[in-house]
Amino acid sequence: MERSFPWVKGHGTRNDFVLLPDPDGSVHGELDPALVRWLCDRRAGIGADGVIRVVRTASYVPAHAQATEAEWFMDYHNADGSVSEMCGNGIRVLGRYLWDEGLAGDDVLWIATRGGVRRLHRGPGGSSTVEMGVPSGGQATAEVTVAGRTWSATPVTIPNPHAVAVVEDLADAGPLLQAPQLAPTDAFPAGANVEFVARRGPRHIALRVWERGVGETPSCGTGACAAAWALMRADGLPPGWTCAVDVPGGTLTVAERGDGEVLLGGPAELVVRGLVDPWAAGLLPVWTPS
Amino acid sequence: MERSFPWVKGHGTRNDFVLLPDPDGSVHGELDPALVRWLCDRRAGIGADGVIRVVRTASYVPAHAQATEAEWFMDYHNADGSVSEMCGNGIRVLGRYLWDEGLAGDDVLWIATRGGVRRLHRGPGGSSTVEMGVPSGGQATAEVTVAGRTWSATPVTIPNPHAVAVVEDLADAGPLLQAPQLAPTDAFPAGANVEFVARRGPRHIALRVWERGVGETPSCGTGACAAAWALMRADGLPPGWTCAVDVPGGTLTVAERGDGEVLLGGPAELVVRGLVDPWAAGLLPVWTPS
Repeated sequence: MERSFPWVKGHGTRNDFVLLPDPDGSVHGELDPALVRWLCDRRAGIGADGVIRVVRTASYVPAHAQATEAEWFMDYHNADGSVSEMCGNGIRVLGRYLWDEGLAGDDVLWIATRGGVRRLHRGPGGSSTVEMGVPSGGQATAEVTVAGRTWSATPVTIPNPHAVAVVEDLADAGPLLQAPQLAPTDAFPAGANVEFVARRGPRHIALRVWERGVGETPSCGTGACAAAWALMRADGLPPGWTCAVDVPGGTLTVAERGDGEVLLGGPAELVVRGLVDPWAAGLLPVWTPS
Repeated sequence: MERSFPWVKGHGTRNDFVLLPDPDGSVHGELDPALVRWLCDRRAGIGADGVIRVVRTASYVPAHAQATEAEWFMDYHNADGSVSEMCGNGIRVLGRYLWDEGLAGDDVLWIATRGGVRRLHRGPGGSSTVEMGVPSGGQATAEVTVAGRTWSATPVTIPNPHAVAVVEDLADAGPLLQAPQLAPTDAFPAGANVEFVARRGPRHIALRVWERGVGETPSCGTGACAAAWALMRADGLPPGWTCAVDVPGGTLTVAERGDGEVLLGGPAELVVRGLVDPWAAGLLPVWTPS
């Protein structure tokens, strides 16, 4: 029985993903959470922040209701085996794969996700820009506390929840080993990602991010969007702005279009690829046919 | 020009390595430190604690003077691009590769390293045991301080320097985010790996290890040997003992043979493999022919 499957690893500003090519859904079907955890294991597996199964929308069951105009579906799974709606760096790595493999010809690509259809624009040198939606929130009505210091914070939803705190120096947040405390708690019923943001110049910011349930990470696409959007609004800039966002893993570009849509741009690299049968190798205890 | 090369990733108790098959030395020659750092990069590369170039001793230049009886040379490189003499978990992963690939037929394998020739014994299910040499030291004449607490520590050399501290609970050492302080400093002129060791039962210990220049790691072969040797000696056991050593990444077995030689045994797994050309992919800026 053939259980080997191909994989490709890529990253955008060091936010990394294992892509599983599965055009007609015949290789994997619904992913076993144990397989996802093994793929994301950085020492005993391949290692990544998440897994993206690359499947044609027509072959994806359950097909997303909005997915008709999008040939490809981004079946995104978190490293812990749970599913997620969308990932701004992940969809750009997926676009890089589809373009590089000749699976998508147009420079503007519609991709279906659990969070709806997203449009991706091809840029130079493997870069791309994705439409991330229209944020909400934007008033500094909350507080973030970490390492004994408290900052006022701006709640932003895009569509996952964020708390954006402006700091003098990114080091002020300390080693960020524990989740920052949020107040008032009823402002964040599902918790939030927390961005500590320092100004670097006009339309140029730098941030560190604490991701809910993960910890500090080298990059967060929605976090970059939330932080840039909150700060450019605080500066009174009308839509049309572009802001450079330094994250620990590189630099992203966030822009707000005239209609309020926020765009996330940046590099996407494909790194290594291979073929693996983790069950035959005894690396996963039981094979669950799907 | 062909610059693609095959690689294999494996681990022993979550101490992980990228193996580069290069039997006649024609693929790589001397490894470029930038390539090593890229191979070990967990997000923008393959990801590992170190790189092992798998080369026949006859093809290794400079050949190790003692290497005549060993067909294979373990060309070990640390994740930072520097070279290292030996790695107890790494040599066991190398043995697994040689046996699995049919490159070594005997159940007892001589492998040349920069630290001399080592003998590796094949065990069941991919496990193996390596002869690690005869430790020295063993008197509790030092101190280790971390998180405001101080423990007496036993210096052990095998042949890299260790400080072994017995603790009540492995959590006593705290989150281990900074290098433990060693005293007296002249007892460790080159610093030391620090093992915090808790007793689990007769001939059964558990440890956490801080590796010099790296931080806390899931496993350390020489650290397991140093800790077991120091504690079994403190218990007055004559050579011939066997001790189970729980490390964060699994369980190793350390034994002292009648002649004083210390043996390190444990699992070794090969995880994934592939072919990569990091220069063509633009992942390394300049290709340095070697």
